[in-house]
Amino acid sequence: MQHIRNAIRNVPDFPKPGIDFKDITPLLASGSLFKEVIDAFADRHHKNNIDVVVGIEARGFIFASALAYALGAGTCLIRKPGKLPHTVHRQTYELEYGTDAVEIHLDAFQCGQRILIIDDVLATGGTVAATAQLISSHFDVEIVELNFLMELDFLNGREKLPGQPIFSLLNY
Amino acid sequence: MQHIRNAIRNVPDFPKPGIDFKDITPLLASGSLFKEVIDAFADRHHKNNIDVVVGIEARGFIFASALAYALGAGTCLIRKPGKLPHTVHRQTYELEYGTDAVEIHLDAFQCGQRILIIDDVLATGGTVAATAQLISSHFDVEIVELNFLMELDFLNGREKLPGQPIFSLLNY
Repeated sequence: MQHIRNAIRNVPDFPKPGIDFKDITPLLASGSLFKEVIDAFADRHHKNNIDVVVGIEARGFIFASALAYALGAGTCLIRKPGKLPHTVHRQTYELEYGTDAVEIHLDAFQCGQRILIIDDVLATGGTVAATAQLISSHFDVEIVELNFLMELDFLNGREKLPGQPIFSLLNY
Repeated sequence: MQHIRNAIRNVPDFPKPGIDFKDITPLLASGSLFKEVIDAFADRHHKNNIDVVVGIEARGFIFASALAYALGAGTCLIRKPGKLPHTVHRQTYELEYGTDAVEIHLDAFQCGQRILIIDDVLATGGTVAATAQLISSHFDVEIVELNFLMELDFLNGREKLPGQPIFSLLNY
């Protein structure tokens, strides 16, 4: 995975001073590296009968939709408030200053479906914890695993996801 | 394509009164329909040697990344101002009231690459016209085609894209 890691660029002080942002656009620009990443997740789940891959706005969509295609699964959008057109469930969560929220359509899943949640980065875990909470409190589905391209270990995002099965392709 | 069309839901008065929004989430939720849509584009381009599929934030990412994976191509993100972490080119464009802009990373493409632009809907064409302008004014690449899942013919988006090759899977 070192060549995958090499294609992720550090951008200092983005989105604000002191944050070292992991920029995945050089990785996405390479057809062979992007395919290798998606295939790594697809190989992991090819016997898991995944019905729907859930993507968290906006970079999560990139991984969720390609992985859904690779697995023959559907994909579901978790969006910021006001972006989904139909009736939604909403889950708010705490930020360092203030709150944010994620939304999902009321008819996002069918009863008993097997769900995979994917995002580019597991950082502090706030958004993905809210997403998992949103799904498990409103739908009778099984969350098979939470997947991430990268996990920033020093931010302890896993602590916000107790009991959840987590797999990250890269750790920092 | 009637079964694809049947999986797209009309949501009246979204995002504002008088707009009949085409909601693609029921289509995305179906693994078989989503695969059929992506394969329709992939079949069209499998001999076109596409290097990079360009997706426009945010729903464009869904189609661009899955199609990139299907073609073995890379994918490139066109984003709203301030979202891309590295140095960008920016293109502003006119809205009904005011202006908006799209951005792309300076190193998004290599010289001579063959590019496909995809988005979910061709409506008034403002965003995609700005995207095509952004790419052709800053990069020595070939835009092979502009692709859309849906084209809303009555909004005449094509008029903003003179001389550009356009293909839409569905017309309304």
